[in-house]
Amino acid sequence: MLKLYHNAGAICAQKVRVCLAEKGVVYEAQDAFGILRSQEYLSLNPRGYVPTLVHDGKVIIESRIISEYLNEVFPDPPLMPDNPYDRARVGAWTKEIDDTLHLNIFTLSCAATLRFYFAAMSPEHREVALPLDPTKRDRTRDLIANGERSRFVKIALERFSRLFDDMEQALAQSTWLVGDRYTLADADHTPYMQRLTDLGLSRLWQDKPHVNEWFNRLKTRPSFSAVLKDWSSPEDLVKAEESARAHARLFEGVLRAG
Amino acid sequence: MLKLYHNAGAICAQKVRVCLAEKGVVYEAQDAFGILRSQEYLSLNPRGYVPTLVHDGKVIIESRIISEYLNEVFPDPPLMPDNPYDRARVGAWTKEIDDTLHLNIFTLSCAATLRFYFAAMSPEHREVALPLDPTKRDRTRDLIANGERSRFVKIALERFSRLFDDMEQALAQSTWLVGDRYTLADADHTPYMQRLTDLGLSRLWQDKPHVNEWFNRLKTRPSFSAVLKDWSSPEDLVKAEESARAHARLFEGVLRAG
Repeated sequence: MLKLYHNAGAICAQKVRVCLAEKGVVYEAQDAFGILRSQEYLSLNPRGYVPTLVHDGKVIIESRIISEYLNEVFPDPPLMPDNPYDRARVGAWTKEIDDTLHLNIFTLSCAATLRFYFAAMSPEHREVALPLDPTKRDRTRDLIANGERSRFVKIALERFSRLFDDMEQALAQSTWLVGDRYTLADADHTPYMQRLTDLGLSRLWQDKPHVNEWFNRLKTRPSFSAVLKDWSSPEDLVKAEESARAHARLFEGVLRAG
Repeated sequence: MLKLYHNAGAICAQKVRVCLAEKGVVYEAQDAFGILRSQEYLSLNPRGYVPTLVHDGKVIIESRIISEYLNEVFPDPPLMPDNPYDRARVGAWTKEIDDTLHLNIFTLSCAATLRFYFAAMSPEHREVALPLDPTKRDRTRDLIANGERSRFVKIALERFSRLFDDMEQALAQSTWLVGDRYTLADADHTPYMQRLTDLGLSRLWQDKPHVNEWFNRLKTRPSFSAVLKDWSSPEDLVKAEESARAHARLFEGVLRAG
């Protein structure tokens, strides 16, 4: 039995869905959005977020670890290189997400959408709804107060700008981020590319031909629809494109100020 | 050729030294403290911190990834379990360090010692010397201003308190953090246990018999001296014990206020 607790829009769940699609594994999916604070869910995942994988009674949390686990128990096709050094290189790409990119994509998502929900709440409701993690909590407060002019937006855009410099360099050497076979590095970064697109920020790689080609290759893989398309109505997808244009205008001033 | 750029007191370098000692691998060690901002070092490790491993010309950074790499290229003795689920459990323990424990040990170290160095600097010098990472930078400023009464000290102590609850539960089930064989989970947590001891915070696990026994077992392993003893003068070790008593008094009030 393979069951994934997830949510359509949760970026870490999207990472795992891409991995499962690449493996061609059949699984049961349960939207956990409404039960994240329930005792039942917290007994599986004490952090109260998605994804959580349950495989034959064994519980595994944290998207990177879930995908590495899936790659081991469903070895075909392999999503890790066959030598230790290239495996370390994949580890470097996936670790960057956990270390800095995830917080920075949260920052940008918060500046574009989440902060408006928080701003509309009563102060009491907001205190309960703000992220529990102290760093995310501080950033959210700053973003509610300062919007896209928050210093954290600039920090996030610079971080992604550096990422695309690094990616352009790597992808000038090989078809995929690590070598000439698709790996978990490519899988894990796929939903981040889509999220940046939805945030109207595809311009960040506009002048990077290798990143452009790589993202186009990612989009033609059957696994790409596991990011959003398989879990969204056609109306939602149209709405996402409209929102992307609005977000692009929001970030335009920050990007132009540099 | 196996070369480790490290520093005696850098906790992430200590993790890798413990792993190398467990493997019984001979390596060249270079103290990189003075060259972290040099072009030569930045070309190896663009983040400008330790450790960096160079193995037959291949450069690997990030302590967790270095140790996993070492475990693959020097397979004997194995420091990972032989099944995917237990490997995922090791991954969960080592990921906690990267996700939250490292920032929180930095917070406590800063409250106990680093902040006094920063406070003694001229404002201009301080701006240059403060950590580049925005989260660490904000925390450091707060710690310089508020000392051990900074809200981040409370957050850090609570985080470690939760860690030792989790560890006590795990170590009630098995000799080591994951199963009955020593793994990278134990290796990676070893320098954190020592650092908390040096911060006068061993009381955090005083009422946890399984954690106590486990740390005693870690201390009897030959690899334990790779944390500090092999890289410190006897005078430094005596000084560290004296400092621990002073730090214990510093944190006592915060711990008592709860």
